[in-house]
Amino acid sequence: MQINDLNSLPKRTIWVEDELIFILDQRFLPHQIIIEQLLSGENAIRAIQEMRVRGAPLIGITAVYGLYLSAQAFDGPIEELHNYLSGVGECLKATRPTAVNLAWAVNQALKSIEPIQPQEVATYLRHFADKLVAEDIAICKAIGEHGLSIIEKIYTQKSDTVQILTHCNAGRLGCVEWGTALAPIYLAHQAGIPVHVWVDETRPRNQGALTALELADADVPHTYIVDNVGGLLMRQKKVDFCIVGADRVSLEAEVANKIGTYLKALAAKANNIPFYVAVPSPTFDCSIQNAMSEIPIETRSEDEIHYIEGQQGHDRQKVRITPPDTPVLNYGFDLTPPELITAIITERGICKPTAESIFSLFPEWRN
Amino acid sequence: MQINDLNSLPKRTIWVEDELIFILDQRFLPHQIIIEQLLSGENAIRAIQEMRVRGAPLIGITAVYGLYLSAQAFDGPIEELHNYLSGVGECLKATRPTAVNLAWAVNQALKSIEPIQPQEVATYLRHFADKLVAEDIAICKAIGEHGLSIIEKIYTQKSDTVQILTHCNAGRLGCVEWGTALAPIYLAHQAGIPVHVWVDETRPRNQGALTALELADADVPHTYIVDNVGGLLMRQKKVDFCIVGADRVSLEAEVANKIGTYLKALAAKANNIPFYVAVPSPTFDCSIQNAMSEIPIETRSEDEIHYIEGQQGHDRQKVRITPPDTPVLNYGFDLTPPELITAIITERGICKPTAESIFSLFPEWRN
Repeated sequence: MQINDLNSLPKRTIWVEDELIFILDQRFLPHQIIIEQLLSGENAIRAIQEMRVRGAPLIGITAVYGLYLSAQAFDGPIEELHNYLSGVGECLKATRPTAVNLAWAVNQALKSIEPIQPQEVATYLRHFADKLVAEDIAICKAIGEHGLSIIEKIYTQKSDTVQILTHCNAGRLGCVEWGTALAPIYLAHQAGIPVHVWVDETRPRNQGALTALELADADVPHTYIVDNVGGLLMRQKKVDFCIVGADRVSLEAEVANKIGTYLKALAAKANNIPFYVAVPSPTFDCSIQNAMSEIPIETRSEDEIHYIEGQQGHDRQKVRITPPDTPVLNYGFDLTPPELITAIITERGICKPTAESIFSLFPEWRN
Repeated sequence: MQINDLNSLPKRTIWVEDELIFILDQRFLPHQIIIEQLLSGENAIRAIQEMRVRGAPLIGITAVYGLYLSAQAFDGPIEELHNYLSGVGECLKATRPTAVNLAWAVNQALKSIEPIQPQEVATYLRHFADKLVAEDIAICKAIGEHGLSIIEKIYTQKSDTVQILTHCNAGRLGCVEWGTALAPIYLAHQAGIPVHVWVDETRPRNQGALTALELADADVPHTYIVDNVGGLLMRQKKVDFCIVGADRVSLEAEVANKIGTYLKALAAKANNIPFYVAVPSPTFDCSIQNAMSEIPIETRSEDEIHYIEGQQGHDRQKVRITPPDTPVLNYGFDLTPPELITAIITERGICKPTAESIFSLFPEWRN
């Protein structure tokens, strides 16, 4: 199924219709809207690996639908289903190492089916995935409401358009609805507060084009800039605050997020501009003691640097932008230390970037 | 004239052969080597504007060859030649507002012909341009030798490959030979010191591809990275120092250079990594009191953000990478404040980023 109408982004990034599971294939955005049916666990693995779906919350949810499809299609001896699904889970978790939500969702799903009879596992996983979807929407909405209070405060002081800078896409295209970093912006816009978003291009995969696309879809004023520009804008006092999502946050509040986040956080600090990280609770990783040594930094394909894909008339074309034989290095993520972060916005409220402050919102993690 | 052999970058970026002036048309790099004859002043204006030639020193030299060609072709009343050339000079200076070398070279050339008889102006301008070329080569070589001392010191302490990060292209492709920021690296490589260069892509025009190309041409080990990566590399202690060129430096040592330079300087400071700026003396602008308000920041074409050109087989293709109707902003330069700069490397030696230290090398600027 292929729809080519940029005015009609689907309302959700993943959904069930007549018992079939559909995803928006994000590789063709911002130029083409391609809807694809998820047919199997293998399909889900490929969708995550190739970034047909992306964004920490969304890949976790897609993985669980993948487990469901694997359980549904399993035709081996029924008593081996649990082991089989554990294996599929390993493959799913291996697709993207940095985002913790993926491993979290898969582990939660596998743990929850332990006591379930094999015959009922598929149905159970389907409900589990549907519940994750509902939870993600509720969590993002709650993050939006807490973040909205920050925007309201700036608008009250400034009485002029609130200028916001964001990196990568932590919007509804990386979740199911609302998004994380963009949720407060959508709510502010709906509340009639004038906002304007500086959208970082986010090389090498240019997720800024996704952010621009979904902001345009919601009529939120924005300007697309290359990643190099944000520092000057901050020196020129054209940014009121920065807000980003994250792929993993340690309890010491080291933030693993899309490569380049750290540079923007440094510029914000140097110019006394607040820097917020908006995350759902599954993005916290309580197991990490030392983020710099323990959080794996995904090194992605060299071709993401050598080639770029874009639109030419009605066609997609891929062109080479580096010289022949140029060596490249493609880190997907970087780490931003807590001293550069003003606060973390979660579904339970806003906390400082310290373990103590995180525990005050999530006392159940204290051990 | 068109040559398609990436193994034979011409030795210089601009040269005279049988009384004809040639440039390397850099728009087709790193994929095609196109040599073009400069035919007229108008030709030179277009070459600078369209970035067929680029880099602060090189565009100044190209402008003076443009004045020469204009003088040579002038067929109006001879007593009006000086006024005519002043007009051409204005057009040349208007092509690129940020780099001071361009205005400096044009002003120097126009001033020097004031006492010259109109009949001799063309010949005089030709000698003036040739002299600028020789001076540029000598200046870059001297910058290289002063910078080499820094690399030698690091290598002595480290006894391992010296890791260097650079932004944009401040190499021989932005000058005539050697380059500014890359000159010390070339000399270190020739001296047998193991070096490795992290090459910033430098969106939106990807001058990193030029840097990679000329480093490969000289067999200097290097790795091409997107602009977002440098911060993480510095946190990981994989960078020993940063070195960049500049388009304009005020006496308070605010450095106008390619957009994104400021972000790398912030990351270097945060990680105790030296950050050097390598510039020929004409890049200093003694007239600037307050860089942030007085140095014009060039806003370039929006299409540089919307589209990207690359190679596809034997063809060049241009593809669109932003969503339709996305608003963009394309600042070409930013400003890096002196507190982030370790030292400035000039043809007369190395100075601290203070007016007093600059004057100690250039006492003639003290008034």
